[in-house]
This record gives sequence, C-alpha cells and structure tokens, in this order.
Amino acid sequence: VADIDAFVKGASEALVAELSEWCAIPSISTDPAYARQVRHSAEHLAGLMETAGLHAEVLSVDGGQPAVYAEWLGAGEGAPTITVYGHHDVQPVDPLELWTTPPFEPAVRDGCLYARGASDDKGQIHFQLAAARHLLAADGGLPVNLKFFVEGEEEAGSPTIDTFLAEHGERLSCDVIFVSDTGMYAADVPTLVTAMRGMAYFEVELRTAASDLHSGEFGGTVPNAVEALARLLSGLKDDDGRIAVPGWYDDVLELTAEERDQFAALPFDREHFRRTAGVSALPGERGWSPLERIGGRPSADVCGLWGGYTGVGSKTVIPAEAHAKVSFRLVSDQDPDRLRPLFERWAVDNAPEGAEVRVRWLHGVKPCRTPLDHPGNQAASRAVARAWGVEPLFTREGGSGPERALSDALGASCVYLGVMLPSDRIHAPNERLDLGNYFNGLRAAAYAYEEFTRPEIAGPLLEGRR
Amino acid sequence: VADIDAFVKGASEALVAELSEWCAIPSISTDPAYARQVRHSAEHLAGLMETAGLHAEVLSVDGGQPAVYAEWLGAGEGAPTITVYGHHDVQPVDPLELWTTPPFEPAVRDGCLYARGASDDKGQIHFQLAAARHLLAADGGLPVNLKFFVEGEEEAGSPTIDTFLAEHGERLSCDVIFVSDTGMYAADVPTLVTAMRGMAYFEVELRTAASDLHSGEFGGTVPNAVEALARLLSGLKDDDGRIAVPGWYDDVLELTAEERDQFAALPFDREHFRRTAGVSALPGERGWSPLERIGGRPSADVCGLWGGYTGVGSKTVIPAEAHAKVSFRLVSDQDPDRLRPLFERWAVDNAPEGAEVRVRWLHGVKPCRTPLDHPGNQAASRAVARAWGVEPLFTREGGSGPERALSDALGASCVYLGVMLPSDRIHAPNERLDLGNYFNGLRAAAYAYEEFTRPEIAGPLLEGRR
Repeated sequence: VADIDAFVKGASEALVAELSEWCAIPSISTDPAYARQVRHSAEHLAGLMETAGLHAEVLSVDGGQPAVYAEWLGAGEGAPTITVYGHHDVQPVDPLELWTTPPFEPAVRDGCLYARGASDDKGQIHFQLAAARHLLAADGGLPVNLKFFVEGEEEAGSPTIDTFLAEHGERLSCDVIFVSDTGMYAADVPTLVTAMRGMAYFEVELRTAASDLHSGEFGGTVPNAVEALARLLSGLKDDDGRIAVPGWYDDVLELTAEERDQFAALPFDREHFRRTAGVSALPGERGWSPLERIGGRPSADVCGLWGGYTGVGSKTVIPAEAHAKVSFRLVSDQDPDRLRPLFERWAVDNAPEGAEVRVRWLHGVKPCRTPLDHPGNQAASRAVARAWGVEPLFTREGGSGPERALSDALGASCVYLGVMLPSDRIHAPNERLDLGNYFNGLRAAAYAYEEFTRPEIAGPLLEGRR
Repeated sequence: VADIDAFVKGASEALVAELSEWCAIPSISTDPAYARQVRHSAEHLAGLMETAGLHAEVLSVDGGQPAVYAEWLGAGEGAPTITVYGHHDVQPVDPLELWTTPPFEPAVRDGCLYARGASDDKGQIHFQLAAARHLLAADGGLPVNLKFFVEGEEEAGSPTIDTFLAEHGERLSCDVIFVSDTGMYAADVPTLVTAMRGMAYFEVELRTAASDLHSGEFGGTVPNAVEALARLLSGLKDDDGRIAVPGWYDDVLELTAEERDQFAALPFDREHFRRTAGVSALPGERGWSPLERIGGRPSADVCGLWGGYTGVGSKTVIPAEAHAKVSFRLVSDQDPDRLRPLFERWAVDNAPEGAEVRVRWLHGVKPCRTPLDHPGNQAASRAVARAWGVEPLFTREGGSGPERALSDALGASCVYLGVMLPSDRIHAPNERLDLGNYFNGLRAAAYAYEEFTRPEIAGPLLEGRR
C-alpha cells in the first residue's frame, strides 16, 4: 500500500477516463425503456472487474435488473472477507434543460466530474474497484478476501433484493459489508456514517359521504372529508414535534453521549443549512439538534394530500373523500412491522366525527445501525484518517436503503465509506463527483483493506462468523 | 282566474308536450360546444312568449349566452309590475349511462317528466308562461304588468349578468322580482324561500421551501407545506363549529323567532336527511338545527386541497407547496367585499412556522333576504295556499345565485315561487319534474298575479317605486 499516492498521481487521468466511459451508459433503472442500458452497464462493469483480476458475473432474479457479483478470494480462510455494496443504476435526468453539459456526456470542470451517476453511485464503486486493481497488480494480491455486490435497481427501490439475497446470499457471505453509497459532511470534514433510517409508508383514505355534496344544499351540516383529513393529520405530531402515535418511541435507542458529541463536533452552520434547504425555519422535535433529528430521531411527513376539487376556478363541492401519503423515517430498533398496527389504530381512533378512515400499507424498511466501537468502524476510521489527513467524525444518515436487509441476510454489519458531498446534487441536474474526494476514497479503500486485517480488528470480525 | 283548474285539467297533456319539446333542446351553457343549442333554446322560448301574447326579445351582452326578455305591460302604470326570473340553460348530463331515458328525450313516468332541465329550470319558467298565456287568452289581460328575464348562463355562474343589468336594467324594472328557480320542502309541505346565501370563494397557496425536499435528507427538521396547510385549515372552525375568522359574524342578522318557528314546524326527519346525504353524522355550528345551519347560518368548506406526491405508490418527498380551495356561504347582511380582507388576514396571521401564505380571491356573491312580512311574500304565501290547499311555511335556501344582484340592480325585492323537490335530482342523472307540483305552480303563479294587486299588497309595493 506504500505506493498508493504515486499510483493515484500517475493514473488519475486514466481513472477519470475509465469512469467517464462507464458513466456515459444511461443505466436508468426506473424507466423500462432503459432496461438494455442497465444491462449494458452491468456487463461493462463486469468487464472492468475481470480486467482488475476478480471473477465477475452478471446476475438477476425474478426479472429484476441485473446486478454484478465479483470476487477475489486469494487471501484465504484466515483473512477477513469484505463485501463491497453499491449500485450501478442511476436516477432519471429530467429536467434535461437544466444540465450545463448532457448527463451522459461526462465532463470535467473545476475539479469535478459532471455526469449522472458520477457520485451516486458509479464513482464510489469505481474507487473501490480501482483500489483493488492497483493492489492486485502491485502486490499480487489483497490482504483481505474481496467481494462486490453492485445492484442494478437501487434507484428503483431494490424490488428483488430479498429474492436475490435468498438465492445468492451464500456467495455474498462476509465478515463485514463495506457500503460505498453514502456521503460525508464536507471535503475537509470527513465523516463516517454509522446508521441509516428505516421507513414505514402508508396511504390514508378518508370518506365522509357516499358522494360529493353541494356546499349550498348541505354546507354547515355535513362532514367534509378534506377538512377531516386535515384535522386528523394536524394531530400527527404534538406541540413538541414528537409523533403522537402511542408506542411510537418504545423501541427507539437514544443517541449515545458519544454520538451526540460527534454530532456537536461537526461545524454545523444553521443559517447555511437553512439557506441550502431553501426554508425559513427549522422546526422539529424539541431537545435535539437538526443533525440529530435527521440522523438519529424518528420523523413523520405527509408526502402528499389530495381531495375535492383541484382544477381551475371554483367549484362549490363538499368533498366526500380525501387521501394522503404518510411516511415515517425510523431509527434503531424501531421495526416497521411492529409500528404498522400502531399507526393504523391511531388513524382510526382519531378519525373526526363522521369520517371513516382506511389505512393502506405501502412498504417498510428496517433501520440500520453499527455501533461506533464496532471493529469495522474503527478500521474505516483509521483508513479515512490516513487518506484525508484528518480524523473523521462519526455521523448518521437520514435516508433509507437496503443496508439492513443485506446485514440481516449476510449476518454481518455495515461499515460505510462514502464520499458524496452535499454539493454533489445527486438525483438532480448537474450531478457531479468531487475528484479530490474520489481519489481520497480510493486511497481510503486501499488503506481499509489493510486496516481490516489488523489483529485487533480482524480478531473480533472473524469471531463473529456463523 | 276562476277557470284555472279547468284549464289545467283540459290542457295538461298539451302543456307537458310543449314543455317536453323545449326540454329536448340541449341548452348546456357550461360547454361552448352547445352554444348554438343555447341560442336555439332562447329563440324557441321567445317564440312561446310571443305566442302567449308577450313581446319577446333575445338579448345578450359581452358575448354572453343569450337571455330572453319578454313583457306584457297592459295593466297600466297603476298596477304592480312583476319581473319573473329564471333560466333556460341547463347543466351537463354526465354520466350519461346512469340515465334511464336519454336526458334530451323527455319522457313521462309515474307522474314525473324526466329530462335535463325539466325541473331546473325550464319547467318553472314554463308554468309561469302558461299561467300568463291562459289569463291573457281567457281574460284578455293580466291584473299586473308582467316581464320575464330568463337567463341563458345561470349554470355557468351568470358571468355577464352585471353587464346585462347595467345595460338592460331599466327595461327589467319592476315592483317585485318573482323568482322561479328554487325548491320546496315536499310536494305536500309547500314552502316559500325567503333568503339565499351568498358566497366568498378563495384559493390559498402555502409555501415552505424553494422546492420539494427529500424526507431522508431533511425529514425531522424542515417545515412541510401540506402539513402546514392542514394545520392552518384545521383551525378554520372552532370546537363549536363556528368560523374562527375574527369579525366573521359581525354583520350576521340572527334568524328571527318567527323564522325559527317556521323551521321548527317543518317535518324534519334527521335520520332520513342523514341517509339522503349519505353521511354518518350531521356536525355543524352548535345551537342551530341542520335546516337553520343550511339556510340561516354562515358555513365554511374546504372544497379541495392538494400538495406533494399524489400518484401511485410512494415517493419520499417533503412538499414545498400546497393549495386549497376554501369557500364560505354567507347570510344577510354579510358582504363578501368586507369579509375578504378578514380571511386574508386570518390566513396570514395563522400561518404555521416556516410557511408563507398567499390568498387569492376567486369570487363573491352577496346574500339575499326578503323579510317574511314583506307584502310580496304575503301575496305569494296566499297564492301557494290556494294552489296547494295547504298553508306554506317560510324557509331559506342554502345556495347562492344572482338574485341579490338582480334585487340591487332593479331596486326591488325577490319573492320566490319554486316547485323543485329534493327528489328531483337536479344537476344529476334522471332529473325530473313532479307534474303535480308543476300544475300547482302554474295555478299558484296565476293566483299570485291576482294576489299582487290586492290593495294591502299593491299599496306598499307601489310605494316602494323609486
């Protein structure tokens, strides 16, 4: 690992060119029209993996979009096995006219690579791949056994991942899952994610009458479905910003003092954050900072609401039905299956007079958390410190992903090495990858493979084998 | 007027045939595709008026749909002048498949004429016309001067009526406006409308962020536009069902003891009403009966609300904006122009933290009220008592129309003779006209022309001339 700096310096242009070629493939997984391109992207990546010296396969189950599985197992049974997780599919690109350069014609400007997928998530898989390839070429091997599981439908909500894990989980088995699909606080404030939130997503249907009624004939004496739903949902959080559903916090693990210290150590600029979000206030649960609320506390949001007349001009109607999408972000150890009946009961119990409420379950994701003192987190922290020259802070991510499903299926914890920056505009026009962060990520990945083998790290990791 | 019963008996089939022929013209004013049919309907009616012995003209202003004006002024200056108001345009007919017989192929079944417009409002204009024609033919004249103003765009919200009244108001001038476009409680419980509610209609736009935000990245620490609007609107009425906007009730004339007695005398079956409305509860302002709340009290309804993601499945978005249609029904002497800033101020003052509220005014209608002891109401009451053989009760209608605009423009009060029944399904499939009520309406119209000339009625009416 001694020559990693020299390698990055010498190969930087070739690396960016290779990543650009991959990013030029429009592997949009949410639009069936791009299915061939998703497959093309998978095959292209498998080729890169083979060139790097790994054995690679393109796999899919149940008509799902193809994933890439790759492995190099030359370190032997006594060495830790690491499975890198990420995805090669990308978000749609609309509105196209807001892109300075076309999303699938990668371009370097101001030290950044602009392309859809540059940061989320091809760039992050690519630095792991480049680190492994360099070590295999320079040292003839890796200190760890390395596997890759690179999904092709993460942006589409990973619809077949459970089936995939049931079918191929044995091949993905490992001592630690090395996730490269998250971000860090800032290029000069490296952070390591230790937890991701889960989700419980409901649709609420409320009905007050057999059909819409005329507000002249009935106004003043019949229930109004839109008003009833507004009233119901306005009680979803109490005056302290806490979710009012009984039992909702029963399984919430409070942030530890150390985690709160880490959050507090981040150079959080409230005013900058507010401006970036484009809001005029930062309301939320009393007693927690904004970063703690996003990463470490449950949240609830009405994602959509509709009912009655929504066209141009006026219509004097008393709506008979109204609908809402209600989503919750969960934190460990909340379990969406356990919370589901709690919300359903709350909605029915709190239905205003004359309103009949039906709750439909849309989907759930379990939250994921790896304690700060987990050996994998310690290894990653050392690797990042070596690459960035700065001690990283531990933080949590507010989003939800398949990490917990992976962790449960493989019986291993997730450790996160993610280099996305808040300014990377993922999912938006002009997505970009900070190349400085990309090269640091490459270095950190190489260092991490080494750090995972330290006795005080590898020992506990190997003990955890089932 | 002695032979009116004989006339109705002898001419009943011819009358229904003539009305059917008119109802066969699809004079849908809300759909430009039917503009020629609306004109056809106006010309057809003008022909009937001329045949009856009135001078008739088809008039329109500002590209509005054509109205019919007709007059017979043979009673002379000393006699009261009555202007009958109604409309010859009709509602759309969708969903067509729910009609037992086609909406524009009038058919008689079970003592009712089924056709779009049969009850609302061609049948009601027709009984007035038939009464006048009979008296002109049988007696050679009418006891009153009679005018007709039959609008062609009432169902489209009377968009050009103010211009029409400014241009032609002088010709419509009268001592009393005789409105035939309302209903009665039941065929055997004749009632006379004495007031109609007004309206103030707003659109509320609420914004919390520059654009939608990701509920994973921001959930728990930014305002949510849909939630903010739900919270705002859930405070629109207090726990007593009263509108919470300061000053809203300042100009409300309370129902008189006599009006409350009249409401209480109606054979109101709460359970039947509830079932007819298709609701499970009858919430409303505390202290007033359902009929009082509909006719005599202000009401507020959120007619529509929308914001955020409303498609299929889930999207984890924190909405940046939300919209609502909010309408109020007003009672005398509330004035929409005076209430407008009160609601605007309330919405802004009560905007939740982080929400910017904008209120757009859509339109207003002034409420209309004629005291029970108005001489015109006394005349109409006597006429209905003679026709139905039952003393009518006075009531109020919850809807809004151009009556107040007419009343203000012509400087005369509105007196209502309407025979629509709750079972007539106006605006809905299978609209029908109860022919017994139609013939009673014809008789009552003829009697009313006579009653308006009684000295104790005509005296005060003529005194009111400007």
